[in-house]
Amino acid sequence: MALLVQKFGGTSVGSIERIEAVAERVIKARQSGHQVVVVLSAMAGETNRLLGLAKQIDEIPTPRELDVLLAAGEQVSIALLAMALNKRGYSAVSLIADQVVIRTDNAFNNATIREVETQRITALLGDDNIVIVAGFQGRDIDGNITTLGRGGSDTTAVAIASALDADECQIFTDVDGVYSTDPRIVPTAIRLDVIHFDYMTSMARLGAKVLQLQSVEYACQHRVPLRVLSSFDDSEGTLVNFDSMVSSTIIGIALQNQHALLEIALPETEISKHLALFGGTAWVLTHASDENKSQIVVVNDDIARLKLVFESKMRHIGMVSILSLVGENTEHYLDSVQKVLTEANIKVHTYQSDKKCLSLLINDDDHVAAVDLIHKRFVVDGQSLDNQSYLAVS
Amino acid sequence: MALLVQKFGGTSVGSIERIEAVAERVIKARQSGHQVVVVLSAMAGETNRLLGLAKQIDEIPTPRELDVLLAAGEQVSIALLAMALNKRGYSAVSLIADQVVIRTDNAFNNATIREVETQRITALLGDDNIVIVAGFQGRDIDGNITTLGRGGSDTTAVAIASALDADECQIFTDVDGVYSTDPRIVPTAIRLDVIHFDYMTSMARLGAKVLQLQSVEYACQHRVPLRVLSSFDDSEGTLVNFDSMVSSTIIGIALQNQHALLEIALPETEISKHLALFGGTAWVLTHASDENKSQIVVVNDDIARLKLVFESKMRHIGMVSILSLVGENTEHYLDSVQKVLTEANIKVHTYQSDKKCLSLLINDDDHVAAVDLIHKRFVVDGQSLDNQSYLAVS
Repeated sequence: MALLVQKFGGTSVGSIERIEAVAERVIKARQSGHQVVVVLSAMAGETNRLLGLAKQIDEIPTPRELDVLLAAGEQVSIALLAMALNKRGYSAVSLIADQVVIRTDNAFNNATIREVETQRITALLGDDNIVIVAGFQGRDIDGNITTLGRGGSDTTAVAIASALDADECQIFTDVDGVYSTDPRIVPTAIRLDVIHFDYMTSMARLGAKVLQLQSVEYACQHRVPLRVLSSFDDSEGTLVNFDSMVSSTIIGIALQNQHALLEIALPETEISKHLALFGGTAWVLTHASDENKSQIVVVNDDIARLKLVFESKMRHIGMVSILSLVGENTEHYLDSVQKVLTEANIKVHTYQSDKKCLSLLINDDDHVAAVDLIHKRFVVDGQSLDNQSYLAVS
Repeated sequence: MALLVQKFGGTSVGSIERIEAVAERVIKARQSGHQVVVVLSAMAGETNRLLGLAKQIDEIPTPRELDVLLAAGEQVSIALLAMALNKRGYSAVSLIADQVVIRTDNAFNNATIREVETQRITALLGDDNIVIVAGFQGRDIDGNITTLGRGGSDTTAVAIASALDADECQIFTDVDGVYSTDPRIVPTAIRLDVIHFDYMTSMARLGAKVLQLQSVEYACQHRVPLRVLSSFDDSEGTLVNFDSMVSSTIIGIALQNQHALLEIALPETEISKHLALFGGTAWVLTHASDENKSQIVVVNDDIARLKLVFESKMRHIGMVSILSLVGENTEHYLDSVQKVLTEANIKVHTYQSDKKCLSLLINDDDHVAAVDLIHKRFVVDGQSLDNQSYLAVS
């Protein structure tokens, strides 16, 4: 008997039929003899619907009240799943954040979990219940409703798994695991059976959307084994753990597209103190031909905010993508990667390299061709994913 | 400066525009120097939408989980109103049941309020906030979410007004006060400026829908002055209090239509013990011509349930209405009421009379004509509503 935390996202509970399918999934785990705690997101579309109502009133709604509003979404999905399980003869009890308790700081809309109490969940599991917890939300020390920000249900699941010392935290999603690159861009992408937390953290940080970075880091830090699974089939998915490192190979290609390349009429030394005001993530490039100019790369959505910092000194040059090879000793691949891209007439603006990832800045228009090419040459042809090459590390 | 509790129902918060109109209403009370606690229902249609989702899963959903589901409705409306008030420069804080705390028993779907804590509301009012409380819901002693049943937001408002010792509990609705009879049936119905709790309780019990009986009884018992007002205009509405009794006059005509007249093949003495099993409200008539038969009257929706009790002994005879005259010394009106109805060829099956109400059982087809006639002859012509005839009672 294992203790499993199973998290289902908005698409997985997007309709009554889907919720009933989730019930069947959960029952399967119970029938295998496991104890199950389920963490749910709001039904797909519900968070946006609620946000739409708020924005009709105020473009920037009161943060505290926005969290009261949005937290209603998960309350609906957990109640419906509990009903579906009860209807099928399985005792199930839903809990919202103050009933668990999930304690957070008071950063409304983007709170951080501080503590998860286990007493009530453990008692309910002991009485043979399936416990269903509202994801994404918590309570601050004064009992105010908080939310963890988008994708926060993953973090809720990991935090609960950690607090309960669960055997596995299973993240059910609309893809069936972690792939060597985004399968919507490269159809020949390969599903990984297992991936080490170090690589998974890099993949998530560098653009892989299958798992939210915060939840991977939280799981890594608390040593909670994660498994990414499809809600829609019965495959084993991908296990994220600490047991499998690879030797000198590329595990996957992550991509961050829709970034803006900006020219700033300031020397590089001046840029950093301005960027401290901005607070977002930016990649600074020195402008070789003119030391009084610099180039920086930011995610497209941050342009407006950055304009407040740099004002007229800022000029939009073009759209770029950051392509990252994640694996072991990736710095050894720099020359051959640059050669392959140059042969294909794909310009590399600049790059960053360390032992576990090599990131290249390319034009946004080139991103599909570049990912396809690099994936083929360095993952598939290079047989990086051959299980024989895994090196067990204790 | 007064302390007001203002309750707005589902229609009053049925859209963003309506919520913004409620905000303006609340601000008007603030600008008059009053402290305001607002109690809201869910947006019109939302409770039914949620119930519809539940019924797709289970025709009789788990009572505990149904309350978790339905309670999400008010959480949405209170957050939106708080945003609308904040946007207009007024500090407002929304609270759900566990934040107040509103403590109930554990009768899911039909809970009774046991206690309302005032500490947090009082502190927030003291800091110049408008406090917005989710109606209809509470928490049992174990922290489970409960709901008070349909119309329960009125009860929430009254319970909060009582706990806070508020000066007035204002129930905003889609009519502009309590009328001498249902103005949809009798367009000449007269709006009452003031009505004594005794009469209001009778009116609500005998079919007037403007206020829910439970909330009137709660307000009466805790001596909370109630005011019924329109959300849509600025009239003064109707004040329900203990100050105005009338002498020998009719205050209003209440109507319960769509009731079923049933014949039961059992003597009257046998009926009562069977009805104890049924649990609903029934009016028993002796069958004059055959002592082994009785007639009973129940609300139409209860027929199916009653069939389980009486089985083949029960026969449906027809549809009836109960028309009730509410006022002082109503028993004096029996003869003249019967005479008026007989002259109009309206059959009176039977009647019940006490000092403050006279109820007559008539055929359902006659209810419009009967209410119209009785209202004209005993309320308007009788000038029962002439304020001069009020008799102050301490």
